[in-house]
Amino acid sequence: MSQPAVKVNATEVAAPFSAAMKEYVRTELRGIGPKLVGFLANDDESARKYAEWTGKACVRDGIRYELREVPKERLQEAVEDANRDPEVHGILVYYPCFGTFPSFYGGTMDDFIRDSISIKKDVEGLCQYYRGNLYRNIRYVDDERTQKCVLPCTPLAIVKILEHLNVYNFGQPEGEHLLGKRITIINRSDIVGRPLAAMLANDGADVYSVDINSLYLFRRGKLIECSETPAEAAKKSHVIITGVPVASYKLPLEWVSEGTVIINVASHKNVDEAALMQIPGVKYVPLVGKVTVAMLERNLMRLYENFHMKPRKMWQ
Amino acid sequence: MSQPAVKVNATEVAAPFSAAMKEYVRTELRGIGPKLVGFLANDDESARKYAEWTGKACVRDGIRYELREVPKERLQEAVEDANRDPEVHGILVYYPCFGTFPSFYGGTMDDFIRDSISIKKDVEGLCQYYRGNLYRNIRYVDDERTQKCVLPCTPLAIVKILEHLNVYNFGQPEGEHLLGKRITIINRSDIVGRPLAAMLANDGADVYSVDINSLYLFRRGKLIECSETPAEAAKKSHVIITGVPVASYKLPLEWVSEGTVIINVASHKNVDEAALMQIPGVKYVPLVGKVTVAMLERNLMRLYENFHMKPRKMWQ
Repeated sequence: MSQPAVKVNATEVAAPFSAAMKEYVRTELRGIGPKLVGFLANDDESARKYAEWTGKACVRDGIRYELREVPKERLQEAVEDANRDPEVHGILVYYPCFGTFPSFYGGTMDDFIRDSISIKKDVEGLCQYYRGNLYRNIRYVDDERTQKCVLPCTPLAIVKILEHLNVYNFGQPEGEHLLGKRITIINRSDIVGRPLAAMLANDGADVYSVDINSLYLFRRGKLIECSETPAEAAKKSHVIITGVPVASYKLPLEWVSEGTVIINVASHKNVDEAALMQIPGVKYVPLVGKVTVAMLERNLMRLYENFHMKPRKMWQ
Repeated sequence: MSQPAVKVNATEVAAPFSAAMKEYVRTELRGIGPKLVGFLANDDESARKYAEWTGKACVRDGIRYELREVPKERLQEAVEDANRDPEVHGILVYYPCFGTFPSFYGGTMDDFIRDSISIKKDVEGLCQYYRGNLYRNIRYVDDERTQKCVLPCTPLAIVKILEHLNVYNFGQPEGEHLLGKRITIINRSDIVGRPLAAMLANDGADVYSVDINSLYLFRRGKLIECSETPAEAAKKSHVIITGVPVASYKLPLEWVSEGTVIINVASHKNVDEAALMQIPGVKYVPLVGKVTVAMLERNLMRLYENFHMKPRKMWQ
């Protein structure tokens, strides 16, 4: 009767994107891929690993990749230099750089750096411009609707995973692919939880956004009053996404109904896997990083076509 | 020996801008000024008064002005409609609309509305795009440096007042007009204090930014460690700008050195005038509103020339 739980490897979601990129560079760009510059301005071990790892994936797929190590005092200037350099098509900064050090302008210095990347080169899609457009459901850069906005790459990776798992219903019109779906997101950061909630709500889902202090129901750009507890919201959700950045957090399994899709976006395992796999019909994605890197590449290509490669467009 | 204190009426600063606008509309635009739309979405008495007052000033100077009253639930949609309407050249929202009601995307709903005004129509110059450019000292919209960014209009009004009072030294090169000047700003809001600090620091001043909890020294985009108290910072400042939004706040007059320029940007009088006028050489500007409205008009004209009036540019 009931299906056993299955574990989904992100590689199977990422592979077709990676293959398409390789082929595109080989045939359409005659082997000369766009150039991505990564900035490392700290001694953070995991930032360095992520930098090496994205570099390898890019080079494998035909993208030119250069890692620039700079002291953090020079980071803003180095980013502005890359913004102006026509030979650079994409920019990626490996955070944290300044940690929680505040910017005079409000927020942290890392937020400030993130917002200073040119909209023509922001492969992460996290500068204020792209987030603002996402939050207002504006999908194109230009009035003529020829240049699609890039989307934040980790949230976009989760969308692609949900498409892969057939949570999206493409029989419905654009903007309604997730109509009737309830999704709980345990994270409300500006990098993952908020933009992801916006993307899913723009596609018609009811999104429960949970953080340590509060629960919001979010539907089509609007906050809706709701009285559910996080447990109740999760229990009636078709999808639960965990992104709690501490090793000690584990999703309570009594919150998980049969058949739920569980995606862990945190670097820590937010779920007791062995116990989760006992729940019938669960589909569990323990890691999303490979899909995130595939979306970085996809964003790079979109920026390349929007802003760097004038005459014709092949990549959609 | 020492000069008596003088009180400066903002009208004398605003008048030449207003006259130039009138003349420009009459001669260059053949009497048909650009169109500014104001949005009022609340019952706030002072917002309504400000709306009527800006409307009158605009009409006096040849600008077409339309006030649109909408329920706040429809405000975002109404702003987006105006964003898309080619007959509208400038948009101004009279805050507060949602008060402190939070936006799902972080900040308040009023912040969200402020950021949703098109960069082609934002006469207040307070959307994220213009603030971000100001904070990074980027002065043009386009790479060819033909389209100057608009600047937040209240801070810009204060710059114009400081120019009028000869605090600016135009004998020095651009970016150094305020070199050697120390300026204390008692306000660190995103609307006035922060952008003003950025503008003055971009012009070379040392800016002491004071709020209820802290004092920062801000110089050319960088926070500098400093150990002064607010009293010490003010005492050695050439200019003190007060913007404390409570009736009970009064600037301690022992903070004020002889010959200081004092500008009150708050709607409340942050200074005991009679006592202040006993301090020799003080120049005191009690109200800035008329200059702010002149700067709204100036921003409207700049946006009109940048984005709506293609062939030739007359207004600089």
